[in-house]
Amino acid sequence: MSKINSAEQSTVDWSKGAAYLDGAFMPISEARVPVTDWAYRRSDAVYDVVSVFDGQFFRLDDHLARFRRSIERYRFTPKETDAEIRHILHRIMALSGLRSAYVAMDCLRGQASLGVRVPSKARNYIACYAAPFTSLVPDEHLARGLKLAISTIPRIPHESVDATAKNFHWGDMNMAMFEAEDRGADFPVLLDLKGNLTEGPGFNVFIVTDGIVATPDYNMLEGVSRLSVLELCRELGIDVQIRPISAQEVRDADEIFVTSTAGGVIGASRIDGRIMNNDRPGPVSEELRETYWTKRKNGWHGEPVQYDAA
Amino acid sequence: MSKINSAEQSTVDWSKGAAYLDGAFMPISEARVPVTDWAYRRSDAVYDVVSVFDGQFFRLDDHLARFRRSIERYRFTPKETDAEIRHILHRIMALSGLRSAYVAMDCLRGQASLGVRVPSKARNYIACYAAPFTSLVPDEHLARGLKLAISTIPRIPHESVDATAKNFHWGDMNMAMFEAEDRGADFPVLLDLKGNLTEGPGFNVFIVTDGIVATPDYNMLEGVSRLSVLELCRELGIDVQIRPISAQEVRDADEIFVTSTAGGVIGASRIDGRIMNNDRPGPVSEELRETYWTKRKNGWHGEPVQYDAA
Repeated sequence: MSKINSAEQSTVDWSKGAAYLDGAFMPISEARVPVTDWAYRRSDAVYDVVSVFDGQFFRLDDHLARFRRSIERYRFTPKETDAEIRHILHRIMALSGLRSAYVAMDCLRGQASLGVRVPSKARNYIACYAAPFTSLVPDEHLARGLKLAISTIPRIPHESVDATAKNFHWGDMNMAMFEAEDRGADFPVLLDLKGNLTEGPGFNVFIVTDGIVATPDYNMLEGVSRLSVLELCRELGIDVQIRPISAQEVRDADEIFVTSTAGGVIGASRIDGRIMNNDRPGPVSEELRETYWTKRKNGWHGEPVQYDAA
Repeated sequence: MSKINSAEQSTVDWSKGAAYLDGAFMPISEARVPVTDWAYRRSDAVYDVVSVFDGQFFRLDDHLARFRRSIERYRFTPKETDAEIRHILHRIMALSGLRSAYVAMDCLRGQASLGVRVPSKARNYIACYAAPFTSLVPDEHLARGLKLAISTIPRIPHESVDATAKNFHWGDMNMAMFEAEDRGADFPVLLDLKGNLTEGPGFNVFIVTDGIVATPDYNMLEGVSRLSVLELCRELGIDVQIRPISAQEVRDADEIFVTSTAGGVIGASRIDGRIMNNDRPGPVSEELRETYWTKRKNGWHGEPVQYDAA
């Protein structure tokens, strides 16, 4: 666990972030995946992302547990234990010195010897990095609210690729982002093949109708921020439904908000060009956003970074 | 185009392969993708693979044309022209000195500046490599025939990710390969959500029933080897149908064979444990395999590698 590039003690600039890759620590710019690695070449990898604010990890236990479930779901066998991954994350935060960060942990398939094509024969490995935190949206978009568009491209179905195990199969999302930009929106939201709401690129989606909050139950990542909002709704006495949501319900909603490790709760002001709430995030979205951030500033589900981790 | 690592003139071992990455030539082991690159992190990349046998590219024009269609389909804008990519492929073959090779060309999304999440803002780039040729299967499996298993995991639907633009969305294939291994098979073949045949990991699939060859028309890569076999069937006077093929037709077929840049035509001997043709590839499969390789040895659709390319 203590192997590190010789550069560590010298004048290397860690401010852009620090990484761990297959046993070694290094500046983020040095963390690279072989072009022949199946993690890239077959998108055969799983990952998770945890945020750090003000020197505190948010729900690190939950992210580590989900990461392990993703690893097992896709039959990876990395050598690192959960305790070791936790230590790596503290260490890369310590190396970076960042107070707020986007902290990723990946498990990569690797590759077997030349000519062997069976994934079970590859040696899997872990890569992690801590980069400066960036929100899903710039601050000015938080105030004006997200412009969302319902994509014409259906989300990859759960039956083909299980989205509850966090993975890089974003081909649908990638093209939906181009489509949203073409239509003047900030982000797309994707439907499943039956026309029900799933998720967007990097976030879960909630609607608010007649004061009742609802979010999908299927074909999407079970987000840690989503879970946090479900807890907040219970605390605040807001009714929540977890159920299939049709595209029409999304189009007709009083409010829409999204949840993401990259920003917590973010309200929308437009859906497919329709203006909601006077072109601003709605009141339920704002209450949840404010409560989320107030609680986080007070250490909710926090784990202090060990800035002396070695 | 002429930028090259300083190591070129020295004692670097190019025998494991040569690569080009974003403007520079290098040994294959140095060709790496940043862990933060969307090509890896969102599987936002397209690719193609051409084979070289005996110093000749096979159907290089067709592969370059398909690569360009994939690039355009997914809205990439790399700086290299087709003529430049062709030159790069000759150059990496020259650097490697290989007589037979698996030659890949990738177009990667890259990434935008920190905090920008829109794929249109990224600078796209090209990576290519030439590695020693390896077949889909070891030689002994060619003789005994492939053992295939119909996967329970449906192929990602065309509507979500267009498989005709060659991409790395292999999550369904990856798990299907584990499943096939669990069942004692060499490779899986995947059905679509309606239960019709699509393709396998890295190959198209054909069935032969009552002397008639059939292959699917939808939700799979339009393989260059597949195209070559369709041409061969016409030459040999074999009837061919391009149409939906049910799982039951696959299970009941007289013969099954697969086509791939990694090996041309390869016959199967078992499907879901059922033995075909006395546990050997069938006669139509063998005729097509032999014709394919005889013609290739005679320069069919060949383009000689410029081993002096600089």
